[in-house]
Amino acid sequence: MKGFASDNYAGAHPEVLAAITAANAEHAVAYGADPWTARAKELLREHFGEQASPYLVFNGSAANVLSLRALCRPWESVVCAAGAHVNVDEGGAPERIAGCKLQAVPTLDGKLTPELVASQLHRIGDEHVVQPRVVSVSQSTELGTRYSTYELAALAHFAHERGLLLHVDGARLANAAAALDVPLRAITTDVGADAVSFGGTKNGLLLGEAVVFLRPGLDEGFAYLRKQTLQLASKGRFLGAQFVALLEGDLWRRSAAHANVMAARLAAALVDVPGVRITQPVQANVVFAVIARSATDELQRDWHFYTWDDETGEVRLMCAWDTTPEEVDAFADAVAQACRAASPPR
Amino acid sequence: MKGFASDNYAGAHPEVLAAITAANAEHAVAYGADPWTARAKELLREHFGEQASPYLVFNGSAANVLSLRALCRPWESVVCAAGAHVNVDEGGAPERIAGCKLQAVPTLDGKLTPELVASQLHRIGDEHVVQPRVVSVSQSTELGTRYSTYELAALAHFAHERGLLLHVDGARLANAAAALDVPLRAITTDVGADAVSFGGTKNGLLLGEAVVFLRPGLDEGFAYLRKQTLQLASKGRFLGAQFVALLEGDLWRRSAAHANVMAARLAAALVDVPGVRITQPVQANVVFAVIARSATDELQRDWHFYTWDDETGEVRLMCAWDTTPEEVDAFADAVAQACRAASPPR
Amino acid sequence: MKGFASDNYAGAHPEVLAAITAANAEHAVAYGADPWTARAKELLREHFGEQASPYLVFNGSAANVLSLRALCRPWESVVCAAGAHVNVDEGGAPERIAGCKLQAVPTLDGKLTPELVASQLHRIGDEHVVQPRVVSVSQSTELGTRYSTYELAALAHFAHERGLLLHVDGARLANAAAALDVPLRAITTDVGADAVSFGGTKNGLLLGEAVVFLRPGLDEGFAYLRKQTLQLASKGRFLGAQFVALLEGDLWRRSAAHANVMAARLAAALVDVPGVRITQPVQANVVFAVIARSATDELQRDWHFYTWDDETGEVRLMCAWDTTPEEVDAFADAVAQACRAASPPR
Amino acid sequence: MKGFASDNYAGAHPEVLAAITAANAEHAVAYGADPWTARAKELLREHFGEQASPYLVFNGSAANVLSLRALCRPWESVVCAAGAHVNVDEGGAPERIAGCKLQAVPTLDGKLTPELVASQLHRIGDEHVVQPRVVSVSQSTELGTRYSTYELAALAHFAHERGLLLHVDGARLANAAAALDVPLRAITTDVGADAVSFGGTKNGLLLGEAVVFLRPGLDEGFAYLRKQTLQLASKGRFLGAQFVALLEGDLWRRSAAHANVMAARLAAALVDVPGVRITQPVQANVVFAVIARSATDELQRDWHFYTWDDETGEVRLMCAWDTTPEEVDAFADAVAQACRAASPPR
Repeated sequence: MKGFASDNYAGAHPEVLAAITAANAEHAVAYGADPWTARAKELLREHFGEQASPYLVFNGSAANVLSLRALCRPWESVVCAAGAHVNVDEGGAPERIAGCKLQAVPTLDGKLTPELVASQLHRIGDEHVVQPRVVSVSQSTELGTRYSTYELAALAHFAHERGLLLHVDGARLANAAAALDVPLRAITTDVGADAVSFGGTKNGLLLGEAVVFLRPGLDEGFAYLRKQTLQLASKGRFLGAQFVALLEGDLWRRSAAHANVMAARLAAALVDVPGVRITQPVQANVVFAVIARSATDELQRDWHFYTWDDETGEVRLMCAWDTTPEEVDAFADAVAQACRAASPPR
Repeated sequence: MKGFASDNYAGAHPEVLAAITAANAEHAVAYGADPWTARAKELLREHFGEQASPYLVFNGSAANVLSLRALCRPWESVVCAAGAHVNVDEGGAPERIAGCKLQAVPTLDGKLTPELVASQLHRIGDEHVVQPRVVSVSQSTELGTRYSTYELAALAHFAHERGLLLHVDGARLANAAAALDVPLRAITTDVGADAVSFGGTKNGLLLGEAVVFLRPGLDEGFAYLRKQTLQLASKGRFLGAQFVALLEGDLWRRSAAHANVMAARLAAALVDVPGVRITQPVQANVVFAVIARSATDELQRDWHFYTWDDETGEVRLMCAWDTTPEEVDAFADAVAQACRAASPPR
Repeated sequence: MKGFASDNYAGAHPEVLAAITAANAEHAVAYGADPWTARAKELLREHFGEQASPYLVFNGSAANVLSLRALCRPWESVVCAAGAHVNVDEGGAPERIAGCKLQAVPTLDGKLTPELVASQLHRIGDEHVVQPRVVSVSQSTELGTRYSTYELAALAHFAHERGLLLHVDGARLANAAAALDVPLRAITTDVGADAVSFGGTKNGLLLGEAVVFLRPGLDEGFAYLRKQTLQLASKGRFLGAQFVALLEGDLWRRSAAHANVMAARLAAALVDVPGVRITQPVQANVVFAVIARSATDELQRDWHFYTWDDETGEVRLMCAWDTTPEEVDAFADAVAQACRAASPPR
Repeated sequence: MKGFASDNYAGAHPEVLAAITAANAEHAVAYGADPWTARAKELLREHFGEQASPYLVFNGSAANVLSLRALCRPWESVVCAAGAHVNVDEGGAPERIAGCKLQAVPTLDGKLTPELVASQLHRIGDEHVVQPRVVSVSQSTELGTRYSTYELAALAHFAHERGLLLHVDGARLANAAAALDVPLRAITTDVGADAVSFGGTKNGLLLGEAVVFLRPGLDEGFAYLRKQTLQLASKGRFLGAQFVALLEGDLWRRSAAHANVMAARLAAALVDVPGVRITQPVQANVVFAVIARSATDELQRDWHFYTWDDETGEVRLMCAWDTTPEEVDAFADAVAQACRAASPPR
């Protein structure tokens, strides 16, 4: 029961489970005042800069919604891509829980540009209208594309010039950093981002994400917000220990790079298959491709993956830290065979 | 570094960790559509009745706040004890996230009665005033007391006669059931409760609680509410597997009963110590006692426990699934010695 | 200091003020339990049907936001035109106060169609996504266009078939009804709409709008919601008396028809002016036109009106119940003169 | 149909209606950018000090809830008297709309003291607990009592020393100022209050209240909050004109003083009536008294007033700007007669 459905379908990395087990001895102070959490925060500051303020939470939706809740006052809004997770996959929590209006901009590749953001900035100072405050980008994006450091820096510069803040939904930040072969801070702190939702779950944790504020002063009262938004873990050591496992060595990069390589391998294997059209640049750990519907139906008997667009037949093929080359190759073979069956030579 | 600070200071039970490890193989469908979660829900229905609708969430605050969010319409309120966790320890989430006004009633022992609830029912039908909808009780209470089945049945009957619902904050429900030597349903479903926050974390899970609606129709749309309230775990199997470990055999009762026995042992050891006054009936896994402040100061050099009331010097001594008789005895000896030192014979 | 800036710039109709003055004698029961409010509700039921449930509120934003608050559960969303008042002019209140995500669809003429609504209906039943519940249309629209009864009936039918409700933002409902020469119910109740924000302020009241639920059962608890949303007037008779003045005779239609006629007269006077391009069908009480920017600058020295689109130079020319033919003619002359000056013959 | 039910039962003062009528000429810029509103704000600054920032809103619940919304961050709470309007008569809006937990303290006379506030200040800095931010007092109180300037200054001093703010619910501030024979600022600005809900409706307006921030910096973004909370009037001149009428001369004081005098006259007439027991000091415009239930039943056939406490038979007798001495005397006679009938001499 494997496949390419989601990096959430993968389990926890053995090193992560080992860290949890190792932390499971004796009593530890609850609610994050334990040595593992302290070490995790230290490591997050090593990765994101000494000025960073990290907070651990349970899941990615919470990391995003809490980031927005912290950065926006009640009359402020968030500019994001229409396809951003925060807009389409968080059950209305940004509006209902954070209380923010989202100004969602259609994009072709999941990426915002200064021009697209600019299109959302009107009636500034008009009391009748929510005022843009945060630009939220996903790195890597929900479509497997990624921003270059230059693109991010340009967005941060554009935002700051207009009094806006840049938030990075980094549920797959590790994949982007690994793909660009840069440190985490190179695509967050160093380009001028203000806050990041740093993902752990999709990169091999049991569960756990971090909200990291990258500039001083942005996290005022955040400990209260986290508690009130129901994201303060009582046995906090088990979140802390996982982040230590992820960040102390290179597990975060190893796992993400592996997933990326698997996606590249899959794309390479599919690119020349007749009947397959890859639809997005493969820049992280996912391949989007249009496949004949009958081929998809055939393939889904044995493999897990999602149809992304019912109308075009586009499918999403997500690789995880535990995807193997053998699976990739077997699946690519199966695709080729299914496509041949779907369009027999005349 | 052990002691009597909190059942949250304890780690995960080895059987729980083993279950997580066993579940960590292959891919599993995300967001709770996995076999472990299915089995956990089956077991919860076995424990709470076939009509029960169980949902897993991350922590106890979330279980409570989501219960109230589901049961109350925007103009409805919750009657609870002034000392209830939902009133004093959830960071304003009931008001801010669930949007409910709490009508908190002072109590001596943490327990509501029909009379106390009745004192909060006024101006029914008056559009200017929030309308009571839920009576929320903690079983066992934050003060280590517990309701008898008769007391709960009386509250449920009283509530239902007035169109109210009964919610049980069961962060320590297992302790109450173990202490009463009854099944979980005997103090929830069978007494007429409508919903329960069933605790796992304090009883040996890594993390995880369940919101269980005990009557059909109360959970309409709850899957959306859970997601929106940021409590849908992506790798849901790891919540599911823990509840399977807890509920498939008697781990839940073994662990809770052990903690209760440790509290009883501690109370027995302290009751005759000069300078110690036990302040609440010891009916679950915690002992409340007044100790001389200087004795407390001395004891806290070596032992973790909390001062509950700075003015009276009352302390809270919480036992967990992993508290040992040796610890209890050693601590009781230490208390006796510290109290002697605090009040030397004249 | 008159002009074409907004129907909100006009004062109260003398008959409305007279009604307020007449109501200002003796004491009256507060909070809407007075004879004037009773009569207003009776009249609203005469206009919208016996099954209608009317509630008076202070302003149009409140009427809209309260309608949505009543019709949507926390996980439900509202499909509306991108240019709808509810999306662009209510300060984020739909999201923050009603808690609803808006799914805003770009339109050319401010009008939704079943096809445009259909484009927003995806992932129905998916717990990760807010679920569409309300289709909200403005009649007449913010662009001065209006729906035919057939178009509204088609939208209501489409909505109901999918379990959705149809809300009409009727801040200018009277203008639409007057323009179509039909009763108010012909474009609300009779086409199958479920709720309407019925505007009074723009049609000659001092202040006051009504939320009218058109089908039984939709207003459950609404009295509580209105109070909680800060829209229950203490001296309710003064809202009631105004609606009596508006609805007892034909004041509502007289005033709205007059404003419409003035807009038509203005459009007729402008349509052949060189340098003026009318951009929307003139179907209610407003004319949209592109005028040379230098002409606009010149005109705004003497006349109040708003530039609608800074890029194209489109202006909005709104007529009110008190706009006079003389003003229209004088303004049209001024436009012609300013346009000649802006583009002198070569 | 007069009586002593509420100062909301009274209509608008003729001078207020005249001001509305006078303002109803020509067009005026909408949403408060009109000369009447400008003048009203100027007058409010004259009354409350040059540093004051006034905003007009529709009703008293809104003035209170918006004040709290502006002063509290999401994790902050409000200490108030248990019987405060904000706690018992605003339909849960403080919790649901402002998102604030209220810490309500029982009082005998509706008045907070530093000691009572102190009893609510615990666990400061603890992320699990909402943090007190605002002390809200009613002046005059819902029980007709009033704070002396010394009492208010002591509360403000106590609050500021602990980083708290003092909010005055001044729905009847004019009554308190008139009774103390001091300017409005003497019991707000000059004693150190931070914000006031300044009532107009109960003191002779058609409708209208002001939120006045008394220190710079507290109203940041408040224009957005007001709009979002649905309290920005479109034809703002009609709110402005009323406040001009109220504040330009001494109408505010005349009306309030008259109501106070009527209450004093009523108390004087009742104090020696056998069977009547006055229960609160009469320090503003209301008398609370216990009367035999049968007398109340008899009286309510002809007179409007409310039973305040069903158990004790306490009634509330509110005087308004338009209460006449003749009414007071006639009512006092009726009370005496009804009480005689209720307890005939044996």
